Amino acid sequence: MDLIVQKYGGSSVADADRIRRVARRVAEARDRGSQVVVVVSAMGDTTDHLIALARQISPNPDARELDLLLSTGETVSVTLLAMALREMSYEAISLTGAQAGIHTTSVFNRAHILRVDPERILRELDNGRVVIVAGFQGISEDLDVTTLGRGGSDTTAVALAAAVRAKRCEIYTDVEGVYTADPRVVPEARKLNEIHYDEMLEMASLGARVMQNRSVELGEVYNIPILVASSFTNAPGTLIHGDISMEEVREVRNKVRGIAHDLDVAKITITGVPDRPGIAAAIFESLADAGISVDTIVQNASTTKVADLTFTVSKGDLEKAMLLVRPVAASLGAGECIGDPELAKVSIVGAGIQNAPGYAARMFKTLADAGINIEMITTSEIRITCVVSEERVLEAVRALHRAFELEKAEESQGDTP
Amino acid sequence: MDLIVQKYGGSSVADADRIRRVARRVAEARDRGSQVVVVVSAMGDTTDHLIALARQISPNPDARELDLLLSTGETVSVTLLAMALREMSYEAISLTGAQAGIHTTSVFNRAHILRVDPERILRELDNGRVVIVAGFQGISEDLDVTTLGRGGSDTTAVALAAAVRAKRCEIYTDVEGVYTADPRVVPEARKLNEIHYDEMLEMASLGARVMQNRSVELGEVYNIPILVASSFTNAPGTLIHGDISMEEVREVRNKVRGIAHDLDVAKITITGVPDRPGIAAAIFESLADAGISVDTIVQNASTTKVADLTFTVSKGDLEKAMLLVRPVAASLGAGECIGDPELAKVSIVGAGIQNAPGYAARMFKTLADAGINIEMITTSEIRITCVVSEERVLEAVRALHRAFELEKAEESQGDTP
Repeated sequence: MDLIVQKYGGSSVADADRIRRVARRVAEARDRGSQVVVVVSAMGDTTDHLIALARQISPNPDARELDLLLSTGETVSVTLLAMALREMSYEAISLTGAQAGIHTTSVFNRAHILRVDPERILRELDNGRVVIVAGFQGISEDLDVTTLGRGGSDTTAVALAAAVRAKRCEIYTDVEGVYTADPRVVPEARKLNEIHYDEMLEMASLGARVMQNRSVELGEVYNIPILVASSFTNAPGTLIHGDISMEEVREVRNKVRGIAHDLDVAKITITGVPDRPGIAAAIFESLADAGISVDTIVQNASTTKVADLTFTVSKGDLEKAMLLVRPVAASLGAGECIGDPELAKVSIVGAGIQNAPGYAARMFKTLADAGINIEMITTSEIRITCVVSEERVLEAVRALHRAFELEKAEESQGDTP
Repeated sequence: MDLIVQKYGGSSVADADRIRRVARRVAEARDRGSQVVVVVSAMGDTTDHLIALARQISPNPDARELDLLLSTGETVSVTLLAMALREMSYEAISLTGAQAGIHTTSVFNRAHILRVDPERILRELDNGRVVIVAGFQGISEDLDVTTLGRGGSDTTAVALAAAVRAKRCEIYTDVEGVYTADPRVVPEARKLNEIHYDEMLEMASLGARVMQNRSVELGEVYNIPILVASSFTNAPGTLIHGDISMEEVREVRNKVRGIAHDLDVAKITITGVPDRPGIAAAIFESLADAGISVDTIVQNASTTKVADLTFTVSKGDLEKAMLLVRPVAASLGAGECIGDPELAKVSIVGAGIQNAPGYAARMFKTLADAGINIEMITTSEIRITCVVSEERVLEAVRALHRAFELEKAEESQGDTP
């Protein structure tokens, strides 16, 4: 019997009617003969409401307490979905992250899954039940409830799919799949039928809001095909998988698969950093200990014995990061720490981009022609990213989408425009 | 260092301001040098809202799912109270029932506490923290979340007080203590300074809404003094304890301590029950298996070989009980099953009542003078209860309060009128 994992986001379970609709979709999968594990997010904007409630009490709520508070949102959803399925005479049982055996690190608010003990899930599946698991949450070694960070339900879904050896992980959301760019920014953006994990990873990490980065990584590591589709329509969605040979595809299709952008970028520049071993470690260790993710890092070539070090963090982390970095920079004899919160990233993503000359040049020229200044550049094997000012980034996305002719269907893919 | 357990009900934590007020009260106890464990109910009418949400999905929600759903209410409260205390620079940590080591039976919606493993609580207390525990919830052997039934947070509080060997359990609620009768019914009702567990037990089991029955029983078994007081004022409250010598007190004070009433009474009569051993067992086993509490049971003296058997259940259980009892009665060759949902109980409660002649007579005469018919009578060592029609019961309470002169202060107690 096929075993699939389905995940439904918060907007898909926002009220009783929508929960019933999700129950019917789950029931259809069951009727087709699949065993089903369902992962659910909190209803609608429950998480935001809970955060607002916490902030009424404390402007900066304790991370452990906040995690336990937020976890209640998903717990409510799973019980209601289980009730809805039972009401339709399907056997169903809800499980919290702890009950589902999702063991995580103790880094509250952004825990990582250490392992999944799927024993209880498998037992309930063997009993013929649909198993409904609270997304986004897990449990630490100390039995404290943790959360995986925003969008963590995707990670829960893929991790469970790996743990129970599911055939496929289906992510149902309020978009119909992965597009060549954000359709709200680029109206002529096209839905992709399939995309390689690595390409998706770059799209996701660069702000394509469809799926969380970590969940795609997990999917790649465990080779779980991930279908991203709408929970409101029956449109086919986008399959993220690893069976696309990059070498072959490179020949026949547009190398640029999509334009991603990310508005949540802030920059910190430390001037006059002495050029000694261990300096970068001293700076970034303090950030890592505080759980702050540092993204792009650029260090200017040192001509004298000092250099300027620039790196990006999320806007929400900027203030905290500045507080941490300033004393470290001072103790190292560096110069100023300058923060800039009004930045964004725009990227072109596609297998083989880096090896094919001309893509970077075309990207930079397109931005130059639009009069958009590039603050930082970073590249990976399959993407080129420019940090630009926040107010110009959407313009940059549209210009690049046009420049790389992404509105045109790829013949080899059969995508409809 | 003194160790006390405080419990705050739902109305005491209904919003952010009230949560802050509770935090200040907890902080005051801490400042007085006590170690404090706090048990909290769900905010305001959260539990009712969650039940309404469940009923939107399923008219008769699965008990296991409902328990997990309802448990989120208390989990929200404890995290917010912990945040409020931390905001005031007091060390605090919240624990769910599971984390607090509250192990229960698997009877969902009305689980019983099997044992408390206080290891985590004691560890956190040793770390100098206020420990805030979600009331009303526990965990079964299968790691399923259970709830203890309405008002179960009182039981949580007293059980924790016993497990951590607290000096006292303080129940803060929206009333100022235990009264000689419900002050909403009898305006001249008086607050008692102290009351014996057994008397309170009768008051509670008979509908005095101040505390849940089971929590008083637990207090008696483990000899935990329980203070019931208002969370909104600093009035002294009522101390429920066991150091009152019933023999002594009997001499100096009014034997009747209070008038209790309970509107939640329904009656089932089975006519023509054959007078054979094992009949009652057959009937009541089916109810016990379904988790239905049977209260008063009366069987008429059998002159022929058949008898009428009458018992009371809560109004909410009447329909279910009728469905269970009918086939059993039929299989036993009994006659009709008749349900009556419109009943209530009124009781006089006080140590030594049963041994002192005249109290029962005065009670029955008072009701007779008021023209109130008595449907059933039961007695215990310290109470006499009459089942009467629901529409006359408040009148009965007022008449009895007057007849036993409960508005008068007891000199030996120093209660103020």
